[in-house]
Amino acid sequence: MPPGDTDGLLAPGWAGSPAASATGDTAFLQALLDAEAALTRAQASLGLAPAEAAAAVDAAASDGARFDVHDLALRARGGGNPVIPLVAELTAAVGAVDEAYAPYVHRGATSQDIMDTAMMLVAARTLDLVLADLARTERALARHAREHRNTVMPGRTLTQHAVPTTFGLKAAGWRSLVLDARDRLQAVRDALPAQLGGAAGTLAAFTAYGAASADVGALVEAYAREVGLAAPVLPWHALRTPVADLAGALTFAAGALGKTAADVLTLSRTEIRELSEGSGGGSSAMPHKANPVRATLIAAAARRAPQLAATLYGSLAAEDERPAGAWHAEWEPLRDLLRLVGGAARDAAELAEGLQVHADAMRAHLDLTHGLIVSERLSAELAPVLGRARAKELLTRTAERATAENRPLVELLAEEPELKDVDLAVLADPTQYTGSAGALTDRALERR
Amino acid sequence: MPPGDTDGLLAPGWAGSPAASATGDTAFLQALLDAEAALTRAQASLGLAPAEAAAAVDAAASDGARFDVHDLALRARGGGNPVIPLVAELTAAVGAVDEAYAPYVHRGATSQDIMDTAMMLVAARTLDLVLADLARTERALARHAREHRNTVMPGRTLTQHAVPTTFGLKAAGWRSLVLDARDRLQAVRDALPAQLGGAAGTLAAFTAYGAASADVGALVEAYAREVGLAAPVLPWHALRTPVADLAGALTFAAGALGKTAADVLTLSRTEIRELSEGSGGGSSAMPHKANPVRATLIAAAARRAPQLAATLYGSLAAEDERPAGAWHAEWEPLRDLLRLVGGAARDAAELAEGLQVHADAMRAHLDLTHGLIVSERLSAELAPVLGRARAKELLTRTAERATAENRPLVELLAEEPELKDVDLAVLADPTQYTGSAGALTDRALERR
Amino acid sequence: MPPGDTDGLLAPGWAGSPAASATGDTAFLQALLDAEAALTRAQASLGLAPAEAAAAVDAAASDGARFDVHDLALRARGGGNPVIPLVAELTAAVGAVDEAYAPYVHRGATSQDIMDTAMMLVAARTLDLVLADLARTERALARHAREHRNTVMPGRTLTQHAVPTTFGLKAAGWRSLVLDARDRLQAVRDALPAQLGGAAGTLAAFTAYGAASADVGALVEAYAREVGLAAPVLPWHALRTPVADLAGALTFAAGALGKTAADVLTLSRTEIRELSEGSGGGSSAMPHKANPVRATLIAAAARRAPQLAATLYGSLAAEDERPAGAWHAEWEPLRDLLRLVGGAARDAAELAEGLQVHADAMRAHLDLTHGLIVSERLSAELAPVLGRARAKELLTRTAERATAENRPLVELLAEEPELKDVDLAVLADPTQYTGSAGALTDRALERR
Amino acid sequence: MPPGDTDGLLAPGWAGSPAASATGDTAFLQALLDAEAALTRAQASLGLAPAEAAAAVDAAASDGARFDVHDLALRARGGGNPVIPLVAELTAAVGAVDEAYAPYVHRGATSQDIMDTAMMLVAARTLDLVLADLARTERALARHAREHRNTVMPGRTLTQHAVPTTFGLKAAGWRSLVLDARDRLQAVRDALPAQLGGAAGTLAAFTAYGAASADVGALVEAYAREVGLAAPVLPWHALRTPVADLAGALTFAAGALGKTAADVLTLSRTEIRELSEGSGGGSSAMPHKANPVRATLIAAAARRAPQLAATLYGSLAAEDERPAGAWHAEWEPLRDLLRLVGGAARDAAELAEGLQVHADAMRAHLDLTHGLIVSERLSAELAPVLGRARAKELLTRTAERATAENRPLVELLAEEPELKDVDLAVLADPTQYTGSAGALTDRALERR
Repeated sequence: MPPGDTDGLLAPGWAGSPAASATGDTAFLQALLDAEAALTRAQASLGLAPAEAAAAVDAAASDGARFDVHDLALRARGGGNPVIPLVAELTAAVGAVDEAYAPYVHRGATSQDIMDTAMMLVAARTLDLVLADLARTERALARHAREHRNTVMPGRTLTQHAVPTTFGLKAAGWRSLVLDARDRLQAVRDALPAQLGGAAGTLAAFTAYGAASADVGALVEAYAREVGLAAPVLPWHALRTPVADLAGALTFAAGALGKTAADVLTLSRTEIRELSEGSGGGSSAMPHKANPVRATLIAAAARRAPQLAATLYGSLAAEDERPAGAWHAEWEPLRDLLRLVGGAARDAAELAEGLQVHADAMRAHLDLTHGLIVSERLSAELAPVLGRARAKELLTRTAERATAENRPLVELLAEEPELKDVDLAVLADPTQYTGSAGALTDRALERR
Repeated sequence: MPPGDTDGLLAPGWAGSPAASATGDTAFLQALLDAEAALTRAQASLGLAPAEAAAAVDAAASDGARFDVHDLALRARGGGNPVIPLVAELTAAVGAVDEAYAPYVHRGATSQDIMDTAMMLVAARTLDLVLADLARTERALARHAREHRNTVMPGRTLTQHAVPTTFGLKAAGWRSLVLDARDRLQAVRDALPAQLGGAAGTLAAFTAYGAASADVGALVEAYAREVGLAAPVLPWHALRTPVADLAGALTFAAGALGKTAADVLTLSRTEIRELSEGSGGGSSAMPHKANPVRATLIAAAARRAPQLAATLYGSLAAEDERPAGAWHAEWEPLRDLLRLVGGAARDAAELAEGLQVHADAMRAHLDLTHGLIVSERLSAELAPVLGRARAKELLTRTAERATAENRPLVELLAEEPELKDVDLAVLADPTQYTGSAGALTDRALERR
Repeated sequence: MPPGDTDGLLAPGWAGSPAASATGDTAFLQALLDAEAALTRAQASLGLAPAEAAAAVDAAASDGARFDVHDLALRARGGGNPVIPLVAELTAAVGAVDEAYAPYVHRGATSQDIMDTAMMLVAARTLDLVLADLARTERALARHAREHRNTVMPGRTLTQHAVPTTFGLKAAGWRSLVLDARDRLQAVRDALPAQLGGAAGTLAAFTAYGAASADVGALVEAYAREVGLAAPVLPWHALRTPVADLAGALTFAAGALGKTAADVLTLSRTEIRELSEGSGGGSSAMPHKANPVRATLIAAAARRAPQLAATLYGSLAAEDERPAGAWHAEWEPLRDLLRLVGGAARDAAELAEGLQVHADAMRAHLDLTHGLIVSERLSAELAPVLGRARAKELLTRTAERATAENRPLVELLAEEPELKDVDLAVLADPTQYTGSAGALTDRALERR
Repeated sequence: MPPGDTDGLLAPGWAGSPAASATGDTAFLQALLDAEAALTRAQASLGLAPAEAAAAVDAAASDGARFDVHDLALRARGGGNPVIPLVAELTAAVGAVDEAYAPYVHRGATSQDIMDTAMMLVAARTLDLVLADLARTERALARHAREHRNTVMPGRTLTQHAVPTTFGLKAAGWRSLVLDARDRLQAVRDALPAQLGGAAGTLAAFTAYGAASADVGALVEAYAREVGLAAPVLPWHALRTPVADLAGALTFAAGALGKTAADVLTLSRTEIRELSEGSGGGSSAMPHKANPVRATLIAAAARRAPQLAATLYGSLAAEDERPAGAWHAEWEPLRDLLRLVGGAARDAAELAEGLQVHADAMRAHLDLTHGLIVSERLSAELAPVLGRARAKELLTRTAERATAENRPLVELLAEEPELKDVDLAVLADPTQYTGSAGALTDRALERR
């Protein structure tokens, strides 16, 4: 079974995605091993361990496949985390090369140093994949925004037609959310810290093993460098800013993509059909159906992410130097969030790239309300001609007739002698009442 | 890799538990197949399909291992659920026996019929395991309650000693929550319904395939009987009562066990040590540590469950005859809840059975406040002797002295001539101020 | 300012509703006073307090308006709950009548006894109002279900037309969720318990004040009777089953009503307009708009309730005999849930009673897919005539032509000589392909 | 009733706080009026409205007390938001001065422009108060960190003593979270945008009322300037980044303060008493109790905030140009979050400023494990002397004896002849095994 696809049968949203592979047990095991190897290398780089020991740990840790991830998972029950049995295995593997190197495995560290660092590594690796899919999504949406800068469609509020807008502005809005998500994820990703604090966050064991106090500061930096993460100011065993920041940025991203999905689901309804997915999904019972499956799966992710983030935010309030439960409650929800957003970003890229825009349907729908979609404009423009009270009275009455008689508002207004000098065709043309939609689209597209 | 242990590396709370096996992809695949087989059998039982076809489907569906669960997971992306590719595979497998039987696979059903039924099957099978562990937990707690009916300990409110209570009453309270969880889970389990509605909940395809309208009612009952679940009044594709009820009962159970865990974590602190886990977990850095690992993992589950339930409750508000997202958002959270509660129930049983009660520490702590733990009683009993105002003044002053001079309250009170006839030794004995703790314990233990 | 309408400016969903008045600070204050009065009456009924004292407390507690709720709120900061300052006020008020009765105020109780009992009283009073609005809603939906038993409309799955259904079945489904909500709320309401445990749940103070152990059991029952709630087996200061059950039932109700709202919002879209609210809401900018405001506000409540319930479920895992935070975190969310559901039930009743059903639009939409909405039936029925392979090939090809040529499927099929003896008009008539919709509606309506 | 204290009876956490006044209905009403006034002023500043009209609106809007907030709340039901009735009232008030100015009230805007802008105003005003209390908190914690740089105490992990740490490092960690919260809140506060989009986000009405397209860009900037918020790139009616960012930063702040509260609650337990609140809260039943009330109320806020944030994050996935429900679901949770964090910040400032540190208790507890708290150091330091295997064996055996015989580990080790040259007194002195605690504290305090 390829890594990361475990448990995917209930997860068409993320199964088979790059994020799935990057977050599976196998990937996590390798990240744990990477953290252990970096720790010994960092000590060696400061003369606190023999270079040969670091090389031996590196070699043993380089191939996660030599460790039985299932067995480690079962043995994790004893102490409540998988690092304890893994350290035993890794120590044995290093000791099998040279017993003298064995004591340098995990030396000075605590399980949480390795778990947290591995989680940040997994997050960094997954976010890089997510960011690439967001970039694809953003490019495709920018193309839609440019191409449909002047494609007029009904603006809808509280499910009802309001005034016209453009699909270009809508796509530009979607893109701006994707860029907001990108900015938040990139900022968090760049700041992801290594974890090194020792048993209770004082780094005391390293001094016991010979580091001077000054060395300890250098050790944290060397470790962060070796493992490819940022160096923290303080050990954050019980100061969970990095996890909370991940939670916020990831759930933001899920929601940002969820906005596009919500609109696509609405606009691809059978009765609306202004949009359709490039390749809709089939049905087990109805051969004719082309379901908006990508949007559906993104929408499902957006429904779940906020509650996963809530659990992670909840773990900020953690007692002691390592809490009994709040920390353990982070692991699966953070992985779930990474996967959900990774899968949603893949689906969003495919959705955006394949999205079909039916401009003719958009145009046709502008007439569904017999011209009422421009009633705001008519109110504004007829008031100076007729006086406000008379304009309002006329519009109200005519609007009722338009609906009742199923005739265009403009046709009825044209019967009014007072309006014979007004260019009603222009005033009532929904395609000429898009306000600043074009200018806003242009402005939004300037953002990179 | 054994079924159900996938993705367990981050999940010491449920990895290797019975619930893990019962909820893994392999188990879910088998439940999907069981649902398909039951559907054909049900039709055969009503003469709507040949018995040979039912037998052929049964045979093909009896061994999930012939289907590639990973491949199905990947192909589920197309239509957004795994039933579509599975039906293709199962149809091919049945057709390979006799092409004439192939059309009877999945006949008349929709993907959701099979997905929902399989989810209920998985829930039923997992709940049976959970209920067994709750029964173990309840028995162990009942034993503690009986054995420690008269073991006095400090009652604590807002972290401070309040008045004495007994460990028997505390254990009886834990047990009553376990029984509440049992009752809620059992009621939900007994009502878990099969799902059968066809494409949009009208069961129309079955009439197209020859069932009379009357048969259709019988068909739903036959299907429910064959699959071993309750027969629903209406198809519940978009009426998600069963899922919401599962969410509520499962998160209740997680919280109920979480109460015990919260108390054990508090009472096994180094400074308190009134309780300890039978076999505490070790540490990768500190050989002397005996961490309350079972309680920690239960606490972690209790932190996560409510948010998973929130997602499931959120799916009640679902549009149409099958929603685009709300349904898909249920699958993983429901599995997660089943697993978390399954793991927590296992840990709770072990915790309760192995729990060590240190009655001497409990007794010793009653004196920590120099007798203030019985100040409520002294207030009540000295008022008739001294008058309320005098009693209050004396107690306030003496309590301050007791703390400042580090002397027992009773010793200071004994210096007061007015109290020479009062049996202060009894009044100030915390072990004689447990109110109705014993009677309440007895009453609580009567519940079965 | 009328009671219960405080803070309503941001809450059009519940402002002015019966639940608002029943849950406001004034109502809660009265419930606190009711609990205190019941406690003294209960003691008097058992001879533990003078009847005159009970009468004095009753008199002082009968009018919440004599207490300054704002001042109490501010003074609640000191001890973290409003009972402490209220007891001082109430004691003074009773003492002003006769100093001898003052000691009987709150005697033997703890703040939580009063807070929890008051919360259950408020819940009981609010649920009675909610249940009445659910009954109105249920009746209106039953009427729609009966009247539209045979009103055919498109069944929709994943936003796309699937097969026909009826509005009667849809309304019957909505009603069944309302009945599910009613059953869950009624069961919880009937079991709402009084709270009486004393300082740490042992009821010890009552024995100090003269009750024999046997009396204490009677006291809890007398108290429950006086206050009009159920008598609990155990004090539930830290065993929060009643609160969790309320959370579950209330969020279920919000979601159940949210299902109807989600459908109404979809089906009243400008392009669909199969339903409309009796009196839609206006807009500050667009005079023509008739927004589905009732459904919008119900939908908003349904989005919020699950997370409020999550907080309440989270408080099950509470340490000690009274937790420091978990209890305090319940008060506002439980009130919010009661209000949200109360407001949503009012809106649901109005929505259901005023709902306009546009059967003509429903009928017209059945033709939107050129007959593909009955493709499932044609697949089933033409297979015996043409053979499965030929039937499938013909339908696929003809469906494509129907869409491309914008012509009815039945018209194209009629050109096929092989089908000249088939009654295509019947087979392709969507109003004749509603399966068991009618029978299911009838069955669902039998439930009372 | 003073503004902002409504509904405070159940909210000792925020009742009476600055944030309460800043978020009450009265404050929100004034913010709505401020937004309306700024809109007319902005139009006047660009020559799109007479200066006199702007002055008239300003005058009418300057005193919220002339409007009946309760009546507005009730009338908000009609259209689903309070702006619609408020605009009617404000228009009447302006028209009463000069009918000619009435049309300039709310001209070109939609309800959401005013609601969203008002919400951002309320958020800005509340965050300024919160930031001030966080600054107080931070200063007090910095003082504790400096004063207790060398105050040694047990480091605790999974509830058990691990290795020594210092209270200075703990306080520095609390402070670093407060600074993290400050940075996140300040960044969000500085970016809070005004909202201006018109009926569907195209700003079309402003062009209808005479603005050229270029003016519209200027109009948004003028509006933002007048109202004192940032100018957005796009209308964000359905692009809810500002609300999501508020949600994230506020729930982060609640959790950050919750960390301090969790530690204070633990460390002020009767058995631990290393910390106590400056003025603990009393009890209605037990006169001697000094409950950690400030920490309790902060803890309650931290339990609730994540779920409120989840609701707000959930509203990102919003359909159309204005969603039916997702927007309405934001109002109360966002106010609740502002209040909860505002109240928690007030409590945190008082808690930090009044916190009593009992260094003697901390020191005494270091001996509770008979020296096992330094077993990590002994393992490290004795290995070179004895060899690893012998060192481990000796420590394990001696540790068991220390516990069993209730004697200090160092005393038992001193009996070993092999160790006669080792300075056991130093090695086993917990106050000399604080690793880099001091250096880390210094480094953390450098952050401003």
